[in-house]
Amino acid sequence: MTESITHTTSVSGLLAEIADIGTDSARGGYSRPVYSAAELELREWFIAAARARSLDIEQDRNGIIWAWWNPARLPLTDAVVTGSHLDSVPGGGAFDGPLGVASALAAIDSLQAGSVMPERPLALAVFPEEEGSRYGLACLGSQLMTGAVTPQRAAALTDADGTTFADLAARNGLDPAGMGRDDERLSQIGCFVELHVEQGRGLIDQDRAIAIGSSILGHGRWRLSFSGQGNHAGTTLMDGRRDPMLAAAATVLDVRRLGRAVDGARATVGKLDPIPGGSNVIASRVDVWLDVRHSDDAVVAALVADIAAVAREHAGAEGCSVTLTEASMSPRVDFHPGLRGRLSDILPDAPILPTGAGHDAGVLKEEIPTAMLFVRNPTGISHSPEEYVEDPDADAGGDTLATVLADLLTQP
Amino acid sequence: MTESITHTTSVSGLLAEIADIGTDSARGGYSRPVYSAAELELREWFIAAARARSLDIEQDRNGIIWAWWNPARLPLTDAVVTGSHLDSVPGGGAFDGPLGVASALAAIDSLQAGSVMPERPLALAVFPEEEGSRYGLACLGSQLMTGAVTPQRAAALTDADGTTFADLAARNGLDPAGMGRDDERLSQIGCFVELHVEQGRGLIDQDRAIAIGSSILGHGRWRLSFSGQGNHAGTTLMDGRRDPMLAAAATVLDVRRLGRAVDGARATVGKLDPIPGGSNVIASRVDVWLDVRHSDDAVVAALVADIAAVAREHAGAEGCSVTLTEASMSPRVDFHPGLRGRLSDILPDAPILPTGAGHDAGVLKEEIPTAMLFVRNPTGISHSPEEYVEDPDADAGGDTLATVLADLLTQP
Repeated sequence: MTESITHTTSVSGLLAEIADIGTDSARGGYSRPVYSAAELELREWFIAAARARSLDIEQDRNGIIWAWWNPARLPLTDAVVTGSHLDSVPGGGAFDGPLGVASALAAIDSLQAGSVMPERPLALAVFPEEEGSRYGLACLGSQLMTGAVTPQRAAALTDADGTTFADLAARNGLDPAGMGRDDERLSQIGCFVELHVEQGRGLIDQDRAIAIGSSILGHGRWRLSFSGQGNHAGTTLMDGRRDPMLAAAATVLDVRRLGRAVDGARATVGKLDPIPGGSNVIASRVDVWLDVRHSDDAVVAALVADIAAVAREHAGAEGCSVTLTEASMSPRVDFHPGLRGRLSDILPDAPILPTGAGHDAGVLKEEIPTAMLFVRNPTGISHSPEEYVEDPDADAGGDTLATVLADLLTQP
Repeated sequence: MTESITHTTSVSGLLAEIADIGTDSARGGYSRPVYSAAELELREWFIAAARARSLDIEQDRNGIIWAWWNPARLPLTDAVVTGSHLDSVPGGGAFDGPLGVASALAAIDSLQAGSVMPERPLALAVFPEEEGSRYGLACLGSQLMTGAVTPQRAAALTDADGTTFADLAARNGLDPAGMGRDDERLSQIGCFVELHVEQGRGLIDQDRAIAIGSSILGHGRWRLSFSGQGNHAGTTLMDGRRDPMLAAAATVLDVRRLGRAVDGARATVGKLDPIPGGSNVIASRVDVWLDVRHSDDAVVAALVADIAAVAREHAGAEGCSVTLTEASMSPRVDFHPGLRGRLSDILPDAPILPTGAGHDAGVLKEEIPTAMLFVRNPTGISHSPEEYVEDPDADAGGDTLATVLADLLTQP
């Protein structure tokens, strides 16, 4: 039986230290794209906080920050890792990512104050570009580390300003040629536990503060690119137009209809780019970004195929064409059964919840045992300024993480 | 009876000189926003061409370039003005604007070669931001000159990068405080004749090269701003979403349906901005830009009201709200009957055509007699790389303009 731990540092107090960094007055909430001034300031904050706790800090060749707590100077093997990310979606909330980082810092304080003598090394990790909001590829840091994304592909990615990931990384002291799979680091890690704000209503509905993650839905991003006939909005008669905006709009409605018809599926269009995008120009092309998720990868594929079929119908009816491009597909992830069982032993009352959101823990699961803890979000809303965690729930999360870490560190 | 003139300089040759300036490899065609490097290079080209023809050049306080031909040193009053603009929509064609400028230069060559001795001053004018593609307000130069737009309003406009028009103007040597209605210049001008590529199919259908303009449709731009509940695309169940993208898409379809139901109307959505615009984020807001035109201003207003009503229905059905903002409204313009009649006397065979496109000649019509000449566009397509003018038609346009100018200059 593991003793439960009560915090010495409040998680909300740590988050208050970064509450002014990367606020977005236009969208509300926070915009903290990877390697932006805001995200770099958050990294400095984390490094200073880790230093104040006498942790050993390194930024690896993929831009992941590691802060080691290894008072017994044990060999770096079978380490326990916790952490999350500091980047955000545009106009995101304060908790998605930073809650896991702040909880890790609070947990270290509890462990150090409680005179826990770890029998395994512990590391706090901060992953870059978890959201994929700058380069379109979520979990880019962990995907580089495991080799799921090649450094060549990552280097060539461009952001909205046309800056390549290679250039941005180089500007931030990284060698783009040195990125990629990191066998040495992977061989050092025994397990990874990521604490994260819940992004749905599972805990609200069960009236509980903390859950253990079971799985991540299979999920992917696709681009439907509709091409038609660009023309002048004022001089072109209504009949005979071949306007890809019409085919795109009809497809958006069908994404909802088809997504709703599949139990447990999510299908969303959150990004839509008309080209050239002038208000007095009939678009020549409209790119529709499709996000589809389901616990069964085959259902994701079938739903995307159904959406592509109706998109082709709508395009044909408007005299347009459409192409479908897969930007990413992450298969369903089931977290490590042994590690999950161990968390359930430590937290016997915690509900077990799946999530529709991707996480670095899902990527790393291919290489090492990973698990997740979710903290209640009373709005059920995420990727939005309305994402929220009550202070007592945040502290309960930090305490739970500390309890889990103490168990993993002292009973290998 | 005016003698018709045959050119000494080919219009297509003049356009070939600027064919490499402002090409857009991503969209195709040309992107020449006002005061961009490309548009500034075009201005320099025009100034050099005007200087080579011994014209007197000035840029006025609203950024309009005037190149005067006044060999008899007549008082600057009752001047004949021709010209057009050099800015383009994003990914526009080579002719919308530059054809009128190049034809004016070719016409000057014909007049000078033909030993025409003008009894009125002639000016070639180049207007800035005719398209409104950088600051959202079409015909900004002529609207400042006539006072239709106040310098205060113009100064505060911002482009997509957040640069105010005041800052951009100051960077280009203009005094934002000195802009605005220009009574002195208006008092110098007797009439304005603008030659422009046709942006529809009127001349194709009649198998003719040159037309005289009769009127410009009443036209305006509105923003429908749909607000809903931003959230995570993966964790938010399909039921209970309040996704403004759905209401926006349904409204796009109704813009087509309602626009098509009104004889002679045009209704277009060419620009649609989801906010925050992440592919894995349900948008919290979607801005839909609506362009509506009709020969009857009251029909424009009624159609916009109908569209706003269905937009409210769609928003309500999705648990969203919507606001309607008028960005601009330009009433129907009928060109000056006397000047138009005189053009018909000179060009008895030219068809008389209305246009759905706005022009500086439409703005100036409030102050001085204006008229337009249209040159056949064999694709019928404009605001697109496919906009086209055959070389012989371009030369026919230049000759026609020279013939008209010779008549106006010598028979006041």
